[in-house]
Formats: sequence, C-alpha cells, structure tokens
Amino acid sequence: MRIVVPAGGIGGARFLRGLKATIKGGAGNNDDESTITVIGNTGDDITLFGLRICPDLDTVMYTLGDGINEAQGWGRSDETFVVKEELAAYGMQPTWFGLGDRDVATHIVRSQMMAAGYPLSAVTGALCDRWKPGVQLLPMTDDRVETHVLVEDGEGRRAIHFQEWWIRHRAALPASEIVLVGAEEAEPAPGVLEEIARADIVLLPPSNPVVSIGSILSVPGIRQALNDSVVVGVSPMIGGTAVRGMADACLAAINVESTAQAVAEHYGPDLLDGWLVDDVDADAHVKGTEIRSCPLYMSDPEATAAIAREALDLALELKRRQT
Amino acid sequence: MRIVVPAGGIGGARFLRGLKATIKGGAGNNDDESTITVIGNTGDDITLFGLRICPDLDTVMYTLGDGINEAQGWGRSDETFVVKEELAAYGMQPTWFGLGDRDVATHIVRSQMMAAGYPLSAVTGALCDRWKPGVQLLPMTDDRVETHVLVEDGEGRRAIHFQEWWIRHRAALPASEIVLVGAEEAEPAPGVLEEIARADIVLLPPSNPVVSIGSILSVPGIRQALNDSVVVGVSPMIGGTAVRGMADACLAAINVESTAQAVAEHYGPDLLDGWLVDDVDADAHVKGTEIRSCPLYMSDPEATAAIAREALDLALELKRRQT
Repeated sequence: MRIVVPAGGIGGARFLRGLKATIKGGAGNNDDESTITVIGNTGDDITLFGLRICPDLDTVMYTLGDGINEAQGWGRSDETFVVKEELAAYGMQPTWFGLGDRDVATHIVRSQMMAAGYPLSAVTGALCDRWKPGVQLLPMTDDRVETHVLVEDGEGRRAIHFQEWWIRHRAALPASEIVLVGAEEAEPAPGVLEEIARADIVLLPPSNPVVSIGSILSVPGIRQALNDSVVVGVSPMIGGTAVRGMADACLAAINVESTAQAVAEHYGPDLLDGWLVDDVDADAHVKGTEIRSCPLYMSDPEATAAIAREALDLALELKRRQT
Repeated sequence: MRIVVPAGGIGGARFLRGLKATIKGGAGNNDDESTITVIGNTGDDITLFGLRICPDLDTVMYTLGDGINEAQGWGRSDETFVVKEELAAYGMQPTWFGLGDRDVATHIVRSQMMAAGYPLSAVTGALCDRWKPGVQLLPMTDDRVETHVLVEDGEGRRAIHFQEWWIRHRAALPASEIVLVGAEEAEPAPGVLEEIARADIVLLPPSNPVVSIGSILSVPGIRQALNDSVVVGVSPMIGGTAVRGMADACLAAINVESTAQAVAEHYGPDLLDGWLVDDVDADAHVKGTEIRSCPLYMSDPEATAAIAREALDLALELKRRQT
C-alpha cells in the first residue's frame, strides 16, 4: 500500500508517527510493503544569519527520527543555545527565533549543500540519511516560496514573514491576508506529482489548513493531483477551536470559521473524500464528503496511532467503494 | 606614540596583551595617547562548512577582549562543541578542526557580513565593536590569500591547506614548500600602509616567522613600508628551538635554522633595526641589526609585559638615534 501525506510541522509529524505505528502493527491492511511519502510544507522556511531553515521538514525529520524535543514538539532533544546567545551578544537580529545549537548544525549542512547547488529535495534526502525517518520526505517544491502575513498595528500596514508573525507576535497581531510569495511560479519538487499519482490513498493530518496544508495546495499541480486521489483528512478543529497552536488566527485571516465543518468546506469535496472529526463534531455535514467521528486528541502516541488507524480505515473503505 | 604590530595568533596575541599592560603602566614613555595598530595575519584563514574562519584575527580579538581560552591560547573560554559533534554525526568533513559553539557565532556573523559584501576589514571592525580589544585590528589584506603546504607521503606529493597540515597532521608531514596562494595579487587592507607610514615604531612579536609574519610581509607593499620604519623584533626561538608551537617545521620548509640568529638573518637588516633575543642567545650577531637580550619566556602576563617593555625601550632608543 502506498500512502501519501501532505504535512506541516508538529501536528503532521505526530500524526505520521501514529501512522507509522499503525502500519507496523498491521492495521488497515497486512501489507508489510506499505510506504509513506510525506510532502512537507516549505512555506514557512526562512533564511536567518545566512542559514536556510526549514522548520516543518525538520520537525517531521526529527520527530520520526527520534531526535525531537518531545515536550516542545519542535527542535532537538537535549538542545543548547550557545550560538543564539553569542549572536545576540554581537547585536545580531532577530533574537526571537529559537535557534538551538544542534539545530544550527542541520542548517549549516543544508545551507552549504544549497550553496553548492543541490536542490532542497536532494538536501532533505541527505539529511534523512542520518535520521532515517522511515518515510520518504519530499519538500512540496524546490523553489523558494515564503508565507508572508499582512498585518496592521501602530507601525502601520505591512507584510512580515510568517515566522515573525507566528513566533515574535504569537499570531496576536490581526492578519488581514496571508500570501504565499513565489507560489504561483513554483513547481512541485521531483517525485511529488508522481507519488500522488501512484498513491493508493492520501491522508491529510490535522496540520494547519492555511499555512501548512494550504501552502502545499498552493503549489500549481498539487491540488489537481490530489483531487484525483482518495483523500481523507483529519480535522485540526475540535468543538470550534484549534486542537493546538494558533490555527484559529490563520483561519480568521481567510474568513473561515474555526470549526471542523468550516475547514472541510474550505478544503471542499473535490479534494476531500473523507473527513475525520471528533465525536463532539459528529453532526458536521458536507455534501460529497464522508464524515466519520472518533476522539481526535493526539494526547499520546497510542491515541495518535488510533486516530491514524481510523483515517486509514476510512480511506481504504472509500478506496474499495471507488473500485 | 603610535605603535604598529604585525601579528599572528597565540604568540602575537599574548605579546600584545603584555604591550598593552606596559603602555598602560606608562613604561617606555608617559604618553597616555599611545595607540596600537595590529596588522593581523589572514594567511591561515579557511572556509569550512560555508563559514569563513580567521583564526589569527580571532585569537588576537578574543585574547585582548578577555574572551580567550587561556590555557589553550586559542578559541573561546567556556566553550562547548555541540555543533561540531552534530556536523560529524551528519558525516561532514573535516572533523579535525576545533570548531566551538561560541566561535561558530563569530564565523556566522563574519560570513553573513561578507556575503552581504562587506570587506574583511569592515567585518573585523564590527566584531571588535563587541570585543573592544583596545587596539585597532586590521587584517593584512581584504583579499583572499591562503597558505598552502607542499607535502609528500604515502598518498603522493600534494598541496594541502595550512590548517590541515598544522592541525590534522600536527606539522609532522615534512613540508617541502610553503606557498601563500593569492599573495602576489593581494593589496594591503585599507589603513595598513597609512598606519605603518605614521607609526613611531613597529614591533614584531614572537609570532611564527614563516606563516604569520612571513605571510604579512608577502603582501605587496607591506615589507617596503616596514623597511622604512624603525622595527624591533622579538625572537620566537630560544636556544635553537621554537618557544612554543611548531615553528621549527615551518622554518625547515624554507631552509632556515631554528635559531634566533638565523631568523634575524632571514628577516634581514633592511627590515630589522633591533632584535630581542633570550639571554641564552646573547651571542647572536647580525650586521646592521642591534641585538639585545633578556629572558624571553612569556610564562605569565607580567613576564610578557616585561618582554614587551624591553622591545619598546629598544625601539624608542633606536628611534631617538635616528633623529
């Protein structure tokens, strides 16, 4: 069985860990040859201090490679922050980005390879040679696209990088628009469309629908390819609020309510064949999308594996119905 | 009084600290307005992992800015090596370079500024804004020059970067030639010739005569400017061996004996007006160079300050004789 998972950062990485556990346990099917291809969001990538940083790719890689800071959900375990302190001592800006020493090494390797001419997809493959995440991790694109957020405050109306809005301002500055700069001209990275085309099923983890999944869908060609596939999504909203993170602020910026139903409608039935919601949202109804409910809190690896199994089972059922 | 000091790494930095202490104490003269301009060797600079590293400039900056690892003589105090370990875990080469986390921040700042188009002299000035070394630190040149060493072993005859020879091979591979690649086309950094021209005296610390002072002298224009100045050098050789480090191996490569007298002859009386040797070398004699002896071991800051004072006094005496 071939599974494709477009994924953002923390939520996507944890869902993937549950999915891996479920597949290993033989759930959904008994095919040991199952493969998972992850299409990672690169819209929140940023260059700081001359280092190319890919937060979502790294979160997936560290989480599946057992290198993640478990409590935090991002960054390396046993992390130190000496380089960050020293950069601040030199007066370097910005100081709000959590740049750990172990993490810096990843960015140095990536930056050096990219300076030598390797595309991000090749660099990601090389980094994964160390981490062995057990999935094929592809960036959505090798082209540079960057999520910018249109905000307005005492300093006036301006566009800032998503990371500045997300981390520095904790998404508290009201955003009037979210723009993925460069997306229109971007091409899917090598393998992305091919893997979607030959996938048996596609699962959307409970990643941010706007700046994670939304960014991936913005790369020309990807959404069309997904429309032709069996896609089951897991709602990132439970009972009218984001399960974790600040996805509500992103949805507000694009005038979408923070409900499981509204997110499913935003994705649309062309994309979404099935939609897994929490039991509290069992009354959600979207024409053309099969809705199923179960407890959706990814409170621990076992609960997360159970959610992944539900999504997998629904997708396989829809796939069987199709054929 | 204006003093110019061409300097390498550890020996140069410690001498400079002694010189600063001596001047502050009013020795040599009572002029509080004394300034020291250091012309730093950049011949052993190297780019590793995409980071531009200037070992000698940093050793001077950290030593005079109270950030040096005192026991080691180079690198930062309270240093950690997380980034280095992580780069090795990614399989990155080389692993023999002692790249500390605090040090990495310096290289990141430097590399980012250079990528933005700033010359090394401007970058060095910006780094010194933090360290406040109490001297004007100028690189010998803004151009890229690199010391390569011609070696021969089981792998055949080849040129390797000085750092690889010095650190990885501990200068134990016999060197048949030392070549400063790019020196012929290099220009002195802004201010270098001007500061030499208006200097009252020039002091050569007991730095490596080949790969530190020799590199500085190789930049077209610098040696001629120094020939026109009152220059007093401090011998890096005591009793026929290098005071510290592996300078003997460098001298062997250019067929110069490891003695105070041979080094003075190598510099030549055109350059050297005075030469300070250890008491055990008091019988050294070079026509055209005034030789004076005192204990030359820089065993602690006080002993080092006393050596600097001797050099300073000899230079001032020679200067007075000239006028």
